[in-house]
Amino acid sequence: MNIYDQDLGKNAANYQPQTPLTFLSHAERVYPDKLAVVHGDACYCYRELARRCRRLASALVARGVGRGDTVSVMAPNVPALLEAHYGVPMSGAVLNALNYRLDAPTIAFILNHAQSKVLLTDTEFAPVIKRVLAQLGRGILVIDINDVHIDDTPGAEQLGELDYEAFLATGDSEFSDWQLPDDEWNAISLNYTSGTTGNPKGVVYHHRGAFVNALGNALVFGLNAKSVYLWTLPMFHCNGWTYPWAVTAVGATHVCLRQVDPALIFPLLSQQKVTHMCGAPIVLNMLIHAPDNVKQPFAQTVEVATGGAAPPSTVISAMERMGFKVTHLYGLTETYGPATYCAWQAHWEQLALDERSAYMARQGVHYATMTDSMVADPKTMEPVPADGETIGELMLKGNTVMKGYLKNANASAEAFRGGWFHSGDLGVMHPNGYVEIKDRSKDIIISGGENISSLEIEEVLYKHDDIMEAAVVAKPDQTWGETPCAFVTLKPGAAPVSEQDIIDFCRANMAHFKAPKTVMFVDLPKTQTGKIQKFVLRDRAAEL
Amino acid sequence: MNIYDQDLGKNAANYQPQTPLTFLSHAERVYPDKLAVVHGDACYCYRELARRCRRLASALVARGVGRGDTVSVMAPNVPALLEAHYGVPMSGAVLNALNYRLDAPTIAFILNHAQSKVLLTDTEFAPVIKRVLAQLGRGILVIDINDVHIDDTPGAEQLGELDYEAFLATGDSEFSDWQLPDDEWNAISLNYTSGTTGNPKGVVYHHRGAFVNALGNALVFGLNAKSVYLWTLPMFHCNGWTYPWAVTAVGATHVCLRQVDPALIFPLLSQQKVTHMCGAPIVLNMLIHAPDNVKQPFAQTVEVATGGAAPPSTVISAMERMGFKVTHLYGLTETYGPATYCAWQAHWEQLALDERSAYMARQGVHYATMTDSMVADPKTMEPVPADGETIGELMLKGNTVMKGYLKNANASAEAFRGGWFHSGDLGVMHPNGYVEIKDRSKDIIISGGENISSLEIEEVLYKHDDIMEAAVVAKPDQTWGETPCAFVTLKPGAAPVSEQDIIDFCRANMAHFKAPKTVMFVDLPKTQTGKIQKFVLRDRAAEL
Repeated sequence: MNIYDQDLGKNAANYQPQTPLTFLSHAERVYPDKLAVVHGDACYCYRELARRCRRLASALVARGVGRGDTVSVMAPNVPALLEAHYGVPMSGAVLNALNYRLDAPTIAFILNHAQSKVLLTDTEFAPVIKRVLAQLGRGILVIDINDVHIDDTPGAEQLGELDYEAFLATGDSEFSDWQLPDDEWNAISLNYTSGTTGNPKGVVYHHRGAFVNALGNALVFGLNAKSVYLWTLPMFHCNGWTYPWAVTAVGATHVCLRQVDPALIFPLLSQQKVTHMCGAPIVLNMLIHAPDNVKQPFAQTVEVATGGAAPPSTVISAMERMGFKVTHLYGLTETYGPATYCAWQAHWEQLALDERSAYMARQGVHYATMTDSMVADPKTMEPVPADGETIGELMLKGNTVMKGYLKNANASAEAFRGGWFHSGDLGVMHPNGYVEIKDRSKDIIISGGENISSLEIEEVLYKHDDIMEAAVVAKPDQTWGETPCAFVTLKPGAAPVSEQDIIDFCRANMAHFKAPKTVMFVDLPKTQTGKIQKFVLRDRAAEL
Repeated sequence: MNIYDQDLGKNAANYQPQTPLTFLSHAERVYPDKLAVVHGDACYCYRELARRCRRLASALVARGVGRGDTVSVMAPNVPALLEAHYGVPMSGAVLNALNYRLDAPTIAFILNHAQSKVLLTDTEFAPVIKRVLAQLGRGILVIDINDVHIDDTPGAEQLGELDYEAFLATGDSEFSDWQLPDDEWNAISLNYTSGTTGNPKGVVYHHRGAFVNALGNALVFGLNAKSVYLWTLPMFHCNGWTYPWAVTAVGATHVCLRQVDPALIFPLLSQQKVTHMCGAPIVLNMLIHAPDNVKQPFAQTVEVATGGAAPPSTVISAMERMGFKVTHLYGLTETYGPATYCAWQAHWEQLALDERSAYMARQGVHYATMTDSMVADPKTMEPVPADGETIGELMLKGNTVMKGYLKNANASAEAFRGGWFHSGDLGVMHPNGYVEIKDRSKDIIISGGENISSLEIEEVLYKHDDIMEAAVVAKPDQTWGETPCAFVTLKPGAAPVSEQDIIDFCRANMAHFKAPKTVMFVDLPKTQTGKIQKFVLRDRAAEL
C-alpha cells in the first residue's frame, strides 16, 4: 500500500455521482431568467424549466414511481419530452423515449419488455396508442400531452387519466426530495434499437455516460451559453444524441420542433437565430431541395452535425452555399449517439470541394471523452493495418458505451466480446488515423467473389445531376452470387433519365465491376430518423 | 433488485478509468502533425509530444519508478514540465510540480514528505537545489533540465546524474507498456499549498478529477482545436489549473514561457496568434503598466482567465482597451484550480463599466462539472440567505475536489467536515446566485466590533488614479481592536500623494469607519503566483 492509498478515500465532498441532472440545477442557478425553451407561441426560462421538471419528478413520485421503474414517452420534440429527460430520472426512474413511427405491436412489445409504469403520449399519436393500450394486456398510467402551442396540432382524443399540464399541477415545483442517483452507474434511459429483424433490443444508458457524452458533445460541437439549438433531431433517437443534457449544461436555448419540415425550419433559423442543429443527411437534403419560396436567408452561420450516414459531397457543398457548416458525426444507439467525429484539419481549407468532401465523409476519430477505438478483425481482435483498404469492424471502448441490452445478457455479451464494443459496422482505418465506414456487414455486396461497398456506389450516384437520393443493396444472382441493385429518387423537375443512363454514369465514374446491374426509380422507404430502410429494399431486390 | 440492476454490469468495453492521459493518445491520433508545443526556437507536433512523453514514462519505469512513487519537478513553464504531466502518470507515478520560489528548507521538506524518488530540475534553480540536496539527507535521482531553446537561460551548473534530453534518450518513444490507471481514483499529482503558517500541505489530485476539470475548463474558457494557449500561469500552480490536460484534450497549441515578462509576452501574442492565457490580476497589471515600447498590438481578441484575486474594475477596463477579454475564475489548490467562474450575463453588455466590473469581480457560480456549492455557516452548515450581505464560508462538493492532504488525515477530515469542502474563504451569496468572496477568514478586519472587508477597501484604493497596487490588512489597535492598514504601490510616474490624500479618497468613496487609518507606501511582497503576501504585511502592520 503506497502513501497515496492511505487516508485519501472518497467522501461526500470529493466524490459525487456524475449525472446530467446537475446540469439543470446549474443552469437554473446561473441563468434563471435566460431563455431555456422556445416552442411555438410559448417560451420560458431556466427557472421555469427546472420548476416544471421538479413538478414532473414529484408528480411521478406521488404516483409511486421510483428507482428502477420505467416511464415511456411517445412524443415529437415538444417540451414535455425535453422535461422528461430531467423529471423522469429525478424521480429515480428510467426514461424510455419511444420512436413514434413504430407500429402498435412493436410499441406494445416495448412497453411490456420495459415494464413501463407510465406512458406520456402526445395526442398526435392517439390512434396508434389506442391500439397499443388494447394490446397491452395490463393497466398503465397514461397521461396525454396536449400541445396547445402549435396551431393545428393533429389529434385531440384523450386516452389517459389526465393531461400533462394537469399532471404537472399535481407536482411540487419546489420539490426538494429529488435525488442524484446513489450510483452514477444507475440507468438513466432506455432506447430501443430499430432492429431490422426480430424484436427491438433495449439499450440502457447510465448517468455517468450521459454526463460524459454531453460534455463531449458540447465540446465537439462548440456549444456555449450563447448557442441556440434547434431540435431537428428526434429526442427519442439516442436521447437526441445527449443534446437535451449538453445544451442545458452550457445554459443554451432549446428550440423545440414537432416536425422536420423546411417550411418550419427556415423561419426558425432566422427568427430564433439558431446556431446549432443536428440531423441525418436526409434532413439536410430536405433543406437543400426545399422550394425556393420556402427557403429563407439567415444571417448567422448554422453549425449542422450530421450522422447516421455519411454526407455526400453534393450535400456538403449545397449546405455550405446556404450558410451551414457541416460536421460529420458517427455513432450508434449503443454509444449514446455520437462516438466519433470527423475532426476538421486545417489543411483541408485549401482542398477542392471533392477532395475535402471525401475527407469529411469519413467517420473520423473517437471523441476525446471516449477511451479508445480500433478497426479490427472481429475473430482475432487484431487491428487492421491503417492502409485505408483493409476492411475490419469498428470497435469502441469507453465510458460512453451502454450498460448493455435490457434483459438480454446474451446479446450484451456478444456486443462486448473481447472487451470491446462491436459496432457491427465495417470500415477501414486510413493512414491519417481516421475511420471510414464502408458498410454494415450486411451491406457489403459480394459479387463474383469481389467485395463491393454499397456506400461507394451511392457516393457516385449522388454526383449525378438528376439524382436526389440513392440506395444500393445486393440482389441475389445465379451467376455472380450477388449484384449491386440501385434504388434512386430523382430530383423534382429532373430531366427524363433511363436505367442505362445511370449505369453508364456509374461505369464512367468507378470500376466497371462495381457499377449497379439494375436501377429502380422509387420513393425510398425510410425510418423516422431519415435512414433509408435497406432491409425493405433488399426484399424488393430479391423479388425483382 | 430492479431490472436495470440485472446483467448490466461493468466491463472493459463500457467502463474505463477517466484520465487525462487518454487526451494525449487522442491528440496524437487526431492531430499528429499539428503544432503541439512552441518554446523559444523549438516547436513540435503532437506525434513528437506523445513520443517524448512515452520516452519519459519508459525511462522512469526503467529506473524502477512506478505506481505510488513521486516524481518532483522544479521548473518554469518549459516543455519538460508539460511532458511530465503525461510522462510521470504514464509510468504510474505521481507528479509533484514544485513552486520554484520556495526556499531550500521548504523544498527539502516537500521532497521528503512526498518521498520523491526523482527530481527533474531546471538549471536556473541549481543554486537553491544544491542546498536542498545537501539538506535532504538521502539520495535521489536528479536530472537536470538544460533549456537550450531560450537565449541566456540562467544557470549552467549540473547537479544530476544526467540531463533531461539524455534521460529521454534512455527511454522508448514507442513504449507501449504505459498503462491507464487501474482505478480513476488513483493519484495523478501532488501540489503543496503555499501555507502561510506551518509546513505546507500536500494536496493530492486523482485521474478522475483531472479529467473532469480539464473538460470543465475547456468548456468554460471556450477552447477548441484552433486555440493557442500561452503559458503565463505557472504549471506548478494547481497543475496550471489543469490546462496542460485541457489544451491537449482539444488538440490546441501550448506556447511555453519561462518568465512572466511583458517584453516576452507581447511579441508572443502577435507572433503565435495567442487566443487564451491565464494569470493572477498582477499579471494583467504588468501588461497594463508595461512601457509603451514594450506594448505591441495584436489583431485577435485574447481571452484571459484571471483568478487568485478579484480583478479590479480599472484592470478590467484597461485590459479590454488593449484587446483582451477578461473572465474571472476562482478556486483553490484543493479544487484543481478553478471551481467557480463569473459566468457572463447578456444584460451586462449594456451596463456602464463600473457596474459591469462590480459584477465581473464576483467569483460567480460553480462549474457545471462541479456538483454543488453554497455559502454557509460553518458551524450549523446552514446556507446563508442570498441577500448579498450575510457572510458565510464558501463550500463546494464534487468530483473536482482533492482526494485529501497527503499523510494528514486530520487536516483532510477538517477540510471535508459535514460532507462539504470548506474553502476557508468568506463571502456572500447574491440574489442572482453568484458568490462574492469578501475575505479569507483571517483577512476580515474587526474594528470596534464592525466587520470590515479588506477587499472592499482595496477595490476603492484601486480606483485611485495614482495607485497601481494595494493591499489592506488588520493593524492591532488598543482602542478599536483592529484598524485597517493599507499598503500601496504607486504607478510609475505618479504625482506625489500623501497618506492623508489616500485616507480622504477612501472616506469620500466608502463608509468612513471602513477607511484605512494608516497608509504605507511600499513595494508589495508577493508569492510567485502574484498573490500579495498578506501575512508579511500583517507582521509589518503589527510592528508599526
